[in-house]
Amino acid sequence: MNADKNYQKKLIRTSYSKDISVDFDNKNITVIGWIVSMRKQGKIYFMMLYDSTGPLQIIIKKGISPDDILAQAETLKEHSSIAVRGTIKKNEKAPNGVELHPEEISVLSTTNKIPPFSLYGGQLPNIDKRLDIRAIDLRRPSAQSIMKLRAKTLQSIRNFFIDKDYLEVNTPKIIATATEGGSALFPMLYYDKEAFLTQSPQLFKEQLVLPFEKVFEIAYAYRAEKSRTLHHISEFISVDMEQAFVDYKDVLKIIEELLINLKDDLLKFSSEHLDALNSKDWTNFDSIPAVTYNEAIDIIKAEDPKIEWGDDLSTKSMEILSKKYPYFYYVTDWPSAGKPFYIKCEGDYSESFDLLYGNKELASGGTRVSDKDELQNRLQQKNLNPNGFEFHLRVFDYGMPPHAGFGLGFERLMMIIANQTNIREVCMFPRDQHRLMP
Amino acid sequence: MNADKNYQKKLIRTSYSKDISVDFDNKNITVIGWIVSMRKQGKIYFMMLYDSTGPLQIIIKKGISPDDILAQAETLKEHSSIAVRGTIKKNEKAPNGVELHPEEISVLSTTNKIPPFSLYGGQLPNIDKRLDIRAIDLRRPSAQSIMKLRAKTLQSIRNFFIDKDYLEVNTPKIIATATEGGSALFPMLYYDKEAFLTQSPQLFKEQLVLPFEKVFEIAYAYRAEKSRTLHHISEFISVDMEQAFVDYKDVLKIIEELLINLKDDLLKFSSEHLDALNSKDWTNFDSIPAVTYNEAIDIIKAEDPKIEWGDDLSTKSMEILSKKYPYFYYVTDWPSAGKPFYIKCEGDYSESFDLLYGNKELASGGTRVSDKDELQNRLQQKNLNPNGFEFHLRVFDYGMPPHAGFGLGFERLMMIIANQTNIREVCMFPRDQHRLMP
Repeated sequence: MNADKNYQKKLIRTSYSKDISVDFDNKNITVIGWIVSMRKQGKIYFMMLYDSTGPLQIIIKKGISPDDILAQAETLKEHSSIAVRGTIKKNEKAPNGVELHPEEISVLSTTNKIPPFSLYGGQLPNIDKRLDIRAIDLRRPSAQSIMKLRAKTLQSIRNFFIDKDYLEVNTPKIIATATEGGSALFPMLYYDKEAFLTQSPQLFKEQLVLPFEKVFEIAYAYRAEKSRTLHHISEFISVDMEQAFVDYKDVLKIIEELLINLKDDLLKFSSEHLDALNSKDWTNFDSIPAVTYNEAIDIIKAEDPKIEWGDDLSTKSMEILSKKYPYFYYVTDWPSAGKPFYIKCEGDYSESFDLLYGNKELASGGTRVSDKDELQNRLQQKNLNPNGFEFHLRVFDYGMPPHAGFGLGFERLMMIIANQTNIREVCMFPRDQHRLMP
Repeated sequence: MNADKNYQKKLIRTSYSKDISVDFDNKNITVIGWIVSMRKQGKIYFMMLYDSTGPLQIIIKKGISPDDILAQAETLKEHSSIAVRGTIKKNEKAPNGVELHPEEISVLSTTNKIPPFSLYGGQLPNIDKRLDIRAIDLRRPSAQSIMKLRAKTLQSIRNFFIDKDYLEVNTPKIIATATEGGSALFPMLYYDKEAFLTQSPQLFKEQLVLPFEKVFEIAYAYRAEKSRTLHHISEFISVDMEQAFVDYKDVLKIIEELLINLKDDLLKFSSEHLDALNSKDWTNFDSIPAVTYNEAIDIIKAEDPKIEWGDDLSTKSMEILSKKYPYFYYVTDWPSAGKPFYIKCEGDYSESFDLLYGNKELASGGTRVSDKDELQNRLQQKNLNPNGFEFHLRVFDYGMPPHAGFGLGFERLMMIIANQTNIREVCMFPRDQHRLMP
């Protein structure tokens, strides 16, 4: 089987799979796609062809297929791409209720190897084997569903902000100063200077409320995670929003609205992918309950008396909370001590929150410090050198409005939406401490 | 003038500027925004307040304003944020035909300094002075227009692809191998390994046509440009598309459609910003003419006899071409020798194109090599070590379909759309050899 180098002069696509319905009965069409499966049952070849829109069943058999097609069928291999001209016939059992009877097949790409694991059933090898040939692995139907949900989720979140007049902004990812102190930063050489990859657009998005009032950004951020877990990656997408003239309680409402809108979008437009991944449970919410940190500690203490006020919430703590709050929930008003310098604090408590689901932290946010003196004091309390933040502090001289916002780990959210326990499954080419390839 | 720390309990926004029309005559409303200008003419204060949706004129004068407001007016400074409750009155000369007569003003942020340049008229200092306090600089009306056009352009391009069933993909920006050889890459330390920031998602997007057929990505890419010019930045947004089963001629049509769709969107939704920037000239096109490289050389030779076949097109060469093709134009079928290893070549010519406008290169693309042996040969011809590309080559064993695509420099396009001669003007926080701040 050799690929036909001049295929485009021979067969021109007339239809995509998803558009071919029973109305096409007896129509002559041309489709282009890749062979997902090729089975011979007795004297009949059953071929499943996929294009970007989905499957089409192709039948080759004596009596209906020309001799040259019958001969060619013997040579066709899974994963090859082909163009097929033929006649559509109704078949209730096939996808979309139709099958294609080929009259001409042009081979567009050939396979030299059989993939080391079956993409369409059977035991999957561990994720590292699959990531090594990720482009092939992504042909698996569940990977297709994950990535289609991923794209639709990005689109829904973006449209939510755009519809509400937030300006999409693009902040730099190469920075000279560590946002929150400096651990877990990737160092780089920027011409002849040391620089870092950003962990968060925090300071930039805060600055941008001054000219734009309401901003959002969906972009990569980087964290040098020293531990390899199921929910950490080194390169992740951060969904960031920042808004002037609001406080953290307003932000709680905005996230709630965003997630309800997302749920509605996915149920409406991507229901088949949620079903394919058995992932509709998370959609059973219509509000996001909020519990204060103090209340949370009380709830946890009833099951785990060792927890003390001031402790961060461990996996175990979150599991206890999630019994009471089984979907998305907020923990608000955290102790000031654990919060970064830019979060507004009043005594022991901060105007802050985390968004949680089960035992996972998805987002955090809060009211920001908008007064320059207060911000300088906070930097000093945190043992950060205000000189390193001069580029940021200087903006606060010119009428920085009060503001609040949040940052959400997009892949963490996708783990819930796509019902995945390993964050790598929701990334196309994940990066972690041990993986820089492909 | 001190900021009121508990403002949110006092005045709740009822309206955004853009929604306040003559229908609001005599209504009592509350707006929140920042003071763009404050002028006293005789005994009348004219204040222009901006929020994220635009301007609102505020009038304070004896006879209509309470005494405490008259006293407060004396203390209000440009750039401060305020909340204002008052009554709307018709005024034909004001923006939207209305003005606000305040009854209560709460100061939300104060200014400690006067910006070193006026944002609303007068001579602007050079761009470096402005970039040092970029967040303030972005309050300038023309910067507002540029950034609103920028966001709308991103949105239009994304929607174009989504409407045509392209899957949005996210490829890694931290890579182990240089895509096209390695010059102009930023090195970084990835845990204990050397890595690089990507110059282009080229290899990843090619791989992703195997599972997804049609993909696009809009994301940062990085290039260590050693020269400081008006049209190079180190961190830029690359608009990338890749598609199976098409060749470069199909891609020419797709870009044409994309740019016509963009022009229509901007004329429809952002006309006021194009007008503000005096930037409608570029919209006078309904097709993108294509000239082959050979034809281009003939055209240039008539004015510049020194040019030879095989030369790249200099600024001067492009200026000659743009006399004949005053808007977007393609130069196609470039000599093979100058093209990267992944571009399909046949003898001296390649299936490639550049998209140009005036003397600027905006995008390039072409049919890609989809055969593994041919790709290996091309790597060797270019003195690249195939071992470094093993992670990429291995995908070609599994039925890599024929494909083509393009990459477009988003900020270059924005220079045309926003009528700017310095690429830094279309970035929020540009990065170049000498600028890593703010």
